[in-house]
Amino acid sequence: MKKKLTILGSTGSIGRQTMDIIQNDLESFEVVALAGWNNIDLLTIQINKFRPKYVVVKDDKVAKELKNRLKNRCNCNILYGEYGLNKISAIKEIETVVVAITGMAALKPTIEAINAKKEICLANKEIVVSAGEVLTVKAKQNGVNLIPIDSEHSGIFQCIQPQYFDNIEKIIITASGGPFYNLKETALENVSVEDALNHPNWKMGSKVSIDSATLMNKGLEVIEAHWLFGITVSKIEILVHPQSYIHALVQYDDGSMITQLSNHDMHIPIHFALYYPRRVKNNFSRINLAQIGQLTFRKIDTKRFPSIDLCYDAIKQGGTAPAVLNAANEVAVNAFLNKSIKFKNIIKIVSTVMSKHKNKNNPDIYDIINIDKETRKLTEKLCDEIK
Amino acid sequence: MKKKLTILGSTGSIGRQTMDIIQNDLESFEVVALAGWNNIDLLTIQINKFRPKYVVVKDDKVAKELKNRLKNRCNCNILYGEYGLNKISAIKEIETVVVAITGMAALKPTIEAINAKKEICLANKEIVVSAGEVLTVKAKQNGVNLIPIDSEHSGIFQCIQPQYFDNIEKIIITASGGPFYNLKETALENVSVEDALNHPNWKMGSKVSIDSATLMNKGLEVIEAHWLFGITVSKIEILVHPQSYIHALVQYDDGSMITQLSNHDMHIPIHFALYYPRRVKNNFSRINLAQIGQLTFRKIDTKRFPSIDLCYDAIKQGGTAPAVLNAANEVAVNAFLNKSIKFKNIIKIVSTVMSKHKNKNNPDIYDIINIDKETRKLTEKLCDEIK
Repeated sequence: MKKKLTILGSTGSIGRQTMDIIQNDLESFEVVALAGWNNIDLLTIQINKFRPKYVVVKDDKVAKELKNRLKNRCNCNILYGEYGLNKISAIKEIETVVVAITGMAALKPTIEAINAKKEICLANKEIVVSAGEVLTVKAKQNGVNLIPIDSEHSGIFQCIQPQYFDNIEKIIITASGGPFYNLKETALENVSVEDALNHPNWKMGSKVSIDSATLMNKGLEVIEAHWLFGITVSKIEILVHPQSYIHALVQYDDGSMITQLSNHDMHIPIHFALYYPRRVKNNFSRINLAQIGQLTFRKIDTKRFPSIDLCYDAIKQGGTAPAVLNAANEVAVNAFLNKSIKFKNIIKIVSTVMSKHKNKNNPDIYDIINIDKETRKLTEKLCDEIK
Repeated sequence: MKKKLTILGSTGSIGRQTMDIIQNDLESFEVVALAGWNNIDLLTIQINKFRPKYVVVKDDKVAKELKNRLKNRCNCNILYGEYGLNKISAIKEIETVVVAITGMAALKPTIEAINAKKEICLANKEIVVSAGEVLTVKAKQNGVNLIPIDSEHSGIFQCIQPQYFDNIEKIIITASGGPFYNLKETALENVSVEDALNHPNWKMGSKVSIDSATLMNKGLEVIEAHWLFGITVSKIEILVHPQSYIHALVQYDDGSMITQLSNHDMHIPIHFALYYPRRVKNNFSRINLAQIGQLTFRKIDTKRFPSIDLCYDAIKQGGTAPAVLNAANEVAVNAFLNKSIKFKNIIKIVSTVMSKHKNKNNPDIYDIINIDKETRKLTEKLCDEIK
């Protein structure tokens, strides 16, 4: 029987790799719905290949353009905007929603999918950071699996042996250190957007590349791991491992550590999530340790990269603090990408926003959406002031 | 409820570490029987501590001496020799037999234990190499778990996710390379017994130390892994990893590799085996990768260490070939330890014996015991001739 899927974000980096995997095994998967926002060229190709029943784009204008482009070659339903995303996340006939949209736009559709008891393959970090408690409580209530696509969290997921969950002493997430880990503090002041986008191991979207350069990405991953696996943050550590072959390590309390390794290819964790709970053979390149020769490890330098402590602080505060952290960071990163603030000021601005925030405990989804909006406004203002 | 145990080989290296663990948790374990051969001093201490009902020693003479030593302070049954070993392996009230005797002497007691449906914690390599098929078939028939104590096999055991057994593409056993891995071929000619006993990472018995120096140990471990996990040898590889922190790696066919790491402490795999299927917290030191700094890997050099190919050949031949390999190696290693043959001749002699052997398929336990005896005689003769 085919697994029937909705893909949110089919034209992005994770979305495209998801479509690769599906295309290789059309006997196992059927794409019922796609959301591709505004890349009409690629959407047209995907529609012709996968023949989805529903397609969601950014707005009315893009919807019209797409209809013209398709002419009569496809009788799919073309929807748009938030309504469209929510709708295709809860279609009766689908089993699984792949959440490959970045940012907070994924929150409502993911909640819709969980309420409709769909399995979730989750590539979006922001919504778990901002609304981790709401999402995981709802998932538990609905008996829904949240299967991580992020390579580190897929690694943790694979190393946790459920019968030994209570024996987990520590979870270690590896960090490549990003492009600037070996720079002196003074040199960090003047890095350019181009330098920051140049990640040593992975080709990724620009937001996550900048987060890798500030190491905010790792701090966000700690928060994400906390929610996805129900592990207190005092048991979650970061280890610098520049080669990025080991993605995660789980230390059990009887002295054994279990780790997951693979090559730098996001197809591997996507493939794992799509087929879960099965493993299915694929041809992605295998890791060759004799050829690699060495794996190195270093303690993380939280002094030079204060984003890490900001994240630990946010999750210890709980409530709306992680949502504020996430929103402030997203705005500051965009400001840096637009060359309107300096690299060093990204974390400075996030820190300032955090320190001004009055935390609210046990927020519901509307609290989170509101605080997210407010924080964005505040941060934009601050970016204009600080530069 | 306490796990009731028989410990075969309580005074050897693995046996003593087993007793350490048991002593720390007398609420979980009860030692019903001990076999300690001829180390009367240590046996006396162990008897006074653990109060076993049965004790087995080498022979009548040692039994008398032990009785005198104990006087009336212990009312345990003192047995001796093969009869004693077989008897305490099948006592009705015990659940688990820890097989920590080296060499073929462990074969019959282990078979007795399996026939009596006892769980086996297995530290003995030789009997799995020589009689792997007989042992594993019997274990399966009797629904008996063979839980490995060897660090590499414990590592594999922990990395195999039973639901993904059919997805195993490759098992990789790591090899430190032993003390001579970096020596030139000419220098290998003249190594001394003392050099060979000086293993870089582990303190072990002398037989296994020499096997590490010839790398025969790794070849034997490949054969052992084949039988214990039911994986064809073409899927089992060896990887040189001088630091010996990663013990085993399992490559799944969807691109992920799962590995097990721990510090160099045999207590860790013994502890895992004793408590299996539970994991239980202990205080053995944890691995600290930031402190270790790097893990290195190299392809194995089978040309300089021909023992590896000998082992792959033996298991591909099957039948009595692995038993012959094991017996010839044991005799040659002893001859080297007694300084009656050169280091380089250990493998030369084993190879000669192997080439003279006429293989027998589907051997039963008596075939194996006979071929073992014959091979020992033949190898002793050859050692006298070659030197």
